[in-house]
Amino acid sequence: MLTIPWNSTTGWGTPKIQPYAPLQLDPSSTVLHYAPTLFEGLKAYKGKDGVPRLFRPDKNMERMNRSAARLAFPTFTGDNVTQLIKKLVEIDADWVPTDPGTSLYIRPTMIGTQAGLGVGASTDVLLFVIASPVGPYYSTGFKPVKLYATTKDVRAWPGGTGGYKLGSNYAAGVVPQQQAAALGYQQILWLFGPEHRLTEVGTMNLWVGLKGTDGVLELVTPPLEDMILPGVTRDSILALARDHASGKRKLAGLPDKFTVSERNLTMPELVEASRNGTLAEVFGSGTAAIVSSVDGIGYEGELVKVPCGEDGLGDITRVMLREIVGRQTGDIPSEWSVPVDTKA
Amino acid sequence: MLTIPWNSTTGWGTPKIQPYAPLQLDPSSTVLHYAPTLFEGLKAYKGKDGVPRLFRPDKNMERMNRSAARLAFPTFTGDNVTQLIKKLVEIDADWVPTDPGTSLYIRPTMIGTQAGLGVGASTDVLLFVIASPVGPYYSTGFKPVKLYATTKDVRAWPGGTGGYKLGSNYAAGVVPQQQAAALGYQQILWLFGPEHRLTEVGTMNLWVGLKGTDGVLELVTPPLEDMILPGVTRDSILALARDHASGKRKLAGLPDKFTVSERNLTMPELVEASRNGTLAEVFGSGTAAIVSSVDGIGYEGELVKVPCGEDGLGDITRVMLREIVGRQTGDIPSEWSVPVDTKA
Repeated sequence: MLTIPWNSTTGWGTPKIQPYAPLQLDPSSTVLHYAPTLFEGLKAYKGKDGVPRLFRPDKNMERMNRSAARLAFPTFTGDNVTQLIKKLVEIDADWVPTDPGTSLYIRPTMIGTQAGLGVGASTDVLLFVIASPVGPYYSTGFKPVKLYATTKDVRAWPGGTGGYKLGSNYAAGVVPQQQAAALGYQQILWLFGPEHRLTEVGTMNLWVGLKGTDGVLELVTPPLEDMILPGVTRDSILALARDHASGKRKLAGLPDKFTVSERNLTMPELVEASRNGTLAEVFGSGTAAIVSSVDGIGYEGELVKVPCGEDGLGDITRVMLREIVGRQTGDIPSEWSVPVDTKA
Repeated sequence: MLTIPWNSTTGWGTPKIQPYAPLQLDPSSTVLHYAPTLFEGLKAYKGKDGVPRLFRPDKNMERMNRSAARLAFPTFTGDNVTQLIKKLVEIDADWVPTDPGTSLYIRPTMIGTQAGLGVGASTDVLLFVIASPVGPYYSTGFKPVKLYATTKDVRAWPGGTGGYKLGSNYAAGVVPQQQAAALGYQQILWLFGPEHRLTEVGTMNLWVGLKGTDGVLELVTPPLEDMILPGVTRDSILALARDHASGKRKLAGLPDKFTVSERNLTMPELVEASRNGTLAEVFGSGTAAIVSSVDGIGYEGELVKVPCGEDGLGDITRVMLREIVGRQTGDIPSEWSVPVDTKA
């Protein structure tokens, strides 16, 4: 594990890479009481050449610095921490698995560590990075999930912190998730406002494919604003989809007539699209699963049907999975893929 | 410190009272990543007889169990934990200070401790209680504070967790508080919605005194719903004020014509009351300060004036402070005051 302490008087301390071990925290440490904590998630993938590659670590560092500022934590030079993460992956290179779909999951975290029960800016912060090999998310093939659209619990709100990757956005999601599971659904679909605007799926960004009357396939995701997490996979899908739509780089499997929109959709609009046959597909995106197909949404006592291919993937979902995995493993050359030099 | 571990398979473990010491936490402990943490704050006061007294610990235990359920943590028998807290205070009796206004601050906390980066219900939880002597909040007399009514950041929202005492409600308040301080204000006044509804003050409940055209003094606080923390001091002030209003127990210093309302007020209504002279006073309430008087509110570029007595207290604030402190120290006999038997 990598640790870098910070103190408001002495600044950043010396980074250390050391064996995984428990953290010793004073019982009054602020993180245990007021939840000053933020995290990131990224993966190292071994390609056919045996080289571990990070996927867009600059995006994680950029988002981590935004989160840090929101918690009155110190910010840092993203490239420097990326270098240290590369060093950690280099040391742990034997732990990066090689089977298709496997990777080393990397978890950068920052917590407020000073002792004292006053609510205020952190005077002591620990940045630490841990890692763990993870298996393929879809070890038994692609299984689309059913979502429960809750009209009771609300994940994020304007003026809140839903657009930052803070620990405090996650704890309250567990009980709604349990309630959805008890009703037979795998994930929560988070709505907002009296119009039941679609926002996120569980801990993933949300995507909807809509067939326009003009024969154009539209890929829709909610605009970032301050309620939507700026996902790295979200950004990657947007870039790939826009390049296809503009003709800059066409993707096999997507129709020529294709547009991409960052705009809001409501549940009533989705219900209507399901009924009149213009709903093409729905999926979530995130670092853990990359994409996750949806084949139904429980909403106000009814199951809204969502089309899904026989392989468990919608057309856009299938193409995006292929294109992103290709760039993660190095099979598709891309500046998004950052190799770790294990011979240094 | 008191510690009680819980595991989803084995249930509650044996409570231990042991010397204050760091907690050893796996770096992947859920509390450090997804913020499953809740806390309470209560105080032990030594009366003139030298006996430490807890103030309404049953209310803290009730609220703590509500918070625990909201985080999918185990619940517990409040009376049992109160007994253990009494035992802790008994052992720490020499640490309970005796000067007027001083007390032993007691912090019950629950955190999710299991190792693992999945977001889900906690399988391991630690309930711990720490304590620290605290000085008088107003060591240099009563200084009214100026509030900054922010129209940018929002503390809580319908369908969120603002009505539960979760750690996750606190981390995001630090930056707005810093911004208010930079503008010369001591605390944030949290607003909600386009109508700028008043909700809370910093980490305190909010109270407004209004002079009615009929000569009746009205004490107003926002209704609990799901955005307002159910404060123990809030509940105590409501009970005292209602008993005065109904004539059940009159309080010297308050006018006979007096009503109490749990209802919403907006900033435009407060501005109008300040202008037309019907605003009597504004104060916050909480365990730390008991009450905190306000003498001005910065709102949309203007300073809204709030009346305040020459002693730094409004009429209602002064009476409530006296009545609550009297019950905390045992000077006013009350079932709210729970003595700790230090001779057992």
